[in-house]
Amino acid sequence: MKKIKVVQIGCGNMAKMTVSYALEKGAQIVGAVDNRPEIIGRDLGEVLGYDKKLGVTVSGDLAATLDTAYGDEKPNAQGKYNKFAIVTTTSLVNEVGATLKECARRGINTYTTCEEAHYPWLSAVTMAKEIDALAKEHGATITGGGYQDVFWGHEIVTLAGACHQITKIHGESRYNVDHYGIALALIHGAGFTTAEFEEKVAAPSRKTFQEFLVGMDEGTIEPGYSWTVNGWLAARLGLTIIDQVQECIPTFSPIDLYSSTLGRTIKAGDATGMINRATTKTAEGVEIVFDSIGSVYSPDDTDFNNWKIYGVPDCNVVNAEPATPEHTCATVVNRLIDLYAAPAGYITTNQLPPARYFASADSYVIEG
Amino acid sequence: MKKIKVVQIGCGNMAKMTVSYALEKGAQIVGAVDNRPEIIGRDLGEVLGYDKKLGVTVSGDLAATLDTAYGDEKPNAQGKYNKFAIVTTTSLVNEVGATLKECARRGINTYTTCEEAHYPWLSAVTMAKEIDALAKEHGATITGGGYQDVFWGHEIVTLAGACHQITKIHGESRYNVDHYGIALALIHGAGFTTAEFEEKVAAPSRKTFQEFLVGMDEGTIEPGYSWTVNGWLAARLGLTIIDQVQECIPTFSPIDLYSSTLGRTIKAGDATGMINRATTKTAEGVEIVFDSIGSVYSPDDTDFNNWKIYGVPDCNVVNAEPATPEHTCATVVNRLIDLYAAPAGYITTNQLPPARYFASADSYVIEG
Repeated sequence: MKKIKVVQIGCGNMAKMTVSYALEKGAQIVGAVDNRPEIIGRDLGEVLGYDKKLGVTVSGDLAATLDTAYGDEKPNAQGKYNKFAIVTTTSLVNEVGATLKECARRGINTYTTCEEAHYPWLSAVTMAKEIDALAKEHGATITGGGYQDVFWGHEIVTLAGACHQITKIHGESRYNVDHYGIALALIHGAGFTTAEFEEKVAAPSRKTFQEFLVGMDEGTIEPGYSWTVNGWLAARLGLTIIDQVQECIPTFSPIDLYSSTLGRTIKAGDATGMINRATTKTAEGVEIVFDSIGSVYSPDDTDFNNWKIYGVPDCNVVNAEPATPEHTCATVVNRLIDLYAAPAGYITTNQLPPARYFASADSYVIEG
Repeated sequence: MKKIKVVQIGCGNMAKMTVSYALEKGAQIVGAVDNRPEIIGRDLGEVLGYDKKLGVTVSGDLAATLDTAYGDEKPNAQGKYNKFAIVTTTSLVNEVGATLKECARRGINTYTTCEEAHYPWLSAVTMAKEIDALAKEHGATITGGGYQDVFWGHEIVTLAGACHQITKIHGESRYNVDHYGIALALIHGAGFTTAEFEEKVAAPSRKTFQEFLVGMDEGTIEPGYSWTVNGWLAARLGLTIIDQVQECIPTFSPIDLYSSTLGRTIKAGDATGMINRATTKTAEGVEIVFDSIGSVYSPDDTDFNNWKIYGVPDCNVVNAEPATPEHTCATVVNRLIDLYAAPAGYITTNQLPPARYFASADSYVIEG
């Protein structure tokens, strides 16, 4: 039995949780990497605001850290190494891809919180295949997701396992645009007039499945949070996708709403944000519709994660006010250990059983 | 690829669904058994109220049916047979045990809807071990549960996989006593005065863990629906049980309630039913409390399945108005095929991944 060795890549807010969760599970943090000059050279514990140093210095040199941090680890009988990485940097696979390749070519089993990494097989296909090839060659397992691994993925297929027939799966998950800064607010069209929303957000998103596939792979169209979820669900349920589109649908408030992020009041009738809807049709006749809803909240609004399976029988599930960042970080840390037993390659989590809970550090270990 | 061969044991209401679901999945129904003289010798389709005959005659002879129904099936490399049974008869393992043994000694992979069969390792231990030994000897996998497999089991542990730390798991699941006949209503104390409830229901259930273990194994104490659920969850989460008790707590209505099953009005202040609560303490410090709540409903009451995980972070899940019998039957049919790959023995579903959904009959097949 061995405690697992983890390098943390990206030392911001999410790392604060992933590192503390991993340490409490008994993992060894053997390295940390970030590209912000102001934290390079400092102790990771200090950077993350812990009350003690961790004896791990934040490095700006990814390759050097990955080369030396784990020491001289030998592969097990399946060719897997006690080398793990958590990557909490960006949201698109084409952006995080270079980092994942550095991990893959060193046999480092890696989980990234990159949202698109949840299921890049209908978007960043070229990059995902390149990572997959490197990972297979060097015995690494690379995956990603976070919150969606459980709440938009395994929770839903677990319930589907209690259904005889399914005609449609409809999910909706809501978050407050005011929590995520100005860039995200503008992408969501918060504060736009209906005409502005139509011109800048809705119209550019009207594409065919083929146009989406090409544009997303080339990086000219961004997959919304919903896009990867439908692909994941279809794959896990053994469904063949024949069409998939995403739409941007404005949301409105019946009253004027102040947005702290925009620093102004959104008038009733202007967009408070949008529904990013992915609609998938499958050869088996099962339709999947997922609405990820980001809007400036009125005082009564709360986060939710609601899904309905239509079939024999119908099935409803609601997660009220889910703690999205905490669940993401907990899932990443719980999952790492699964990667050691998984096949090498870019293995999206639809190919794995659900993440496990570890009640004690003693159980969070690998064989060998 | 082979279509699976299924014998249906018990040809009542649940069989109506399990047989139709299995047929729609492409399984072959090769036999049917019941002990009611009035249906023995009749066509199964007719007995179940289908609009066509199935060419399967209901037999009163379990052993003879199991000996001949499957034809001459050879075991695969793992010693497993294309022989399956669905058992929808009674709710206690000591009652269904003889039937499960007949299946086990013929290498028949069997799922029973028997509630206690979900996790008999803290109640009908002697019988479960006997079945387990026979099943191992003859290459059969025997399991049970139904609704609880997913909604009181895999759904909850799937969410636990997104938590870093858990201090307590609390579930509550409610059903209408008026839906299940007079025997169940009386066991639940529906219509009892508080004094009657205390004397007949609550007081006899005040036992220690050791008294429960001995009494349940001997058949002098019945495990409530909650009892097996806590054991399953603890086992799946890798927790060591140090104490478990069940309590019967009366439920009340602020107004008089008419009970169709009792055929009379329950006065405000008398018991409308009860909470069957199992409370489990574990060496790891995680407490599990599950309330299965059966009461005569007021017009506003609905079924629910609510769970809360307390920890880092907290996690809520609600299934509104779940279709319990349909989910049970769908789970049983979806699950059968998992038993072919599972180890031989009495393998409770905590040892398996969640049941899968099969979108088409083509995918509901076994290798070989």
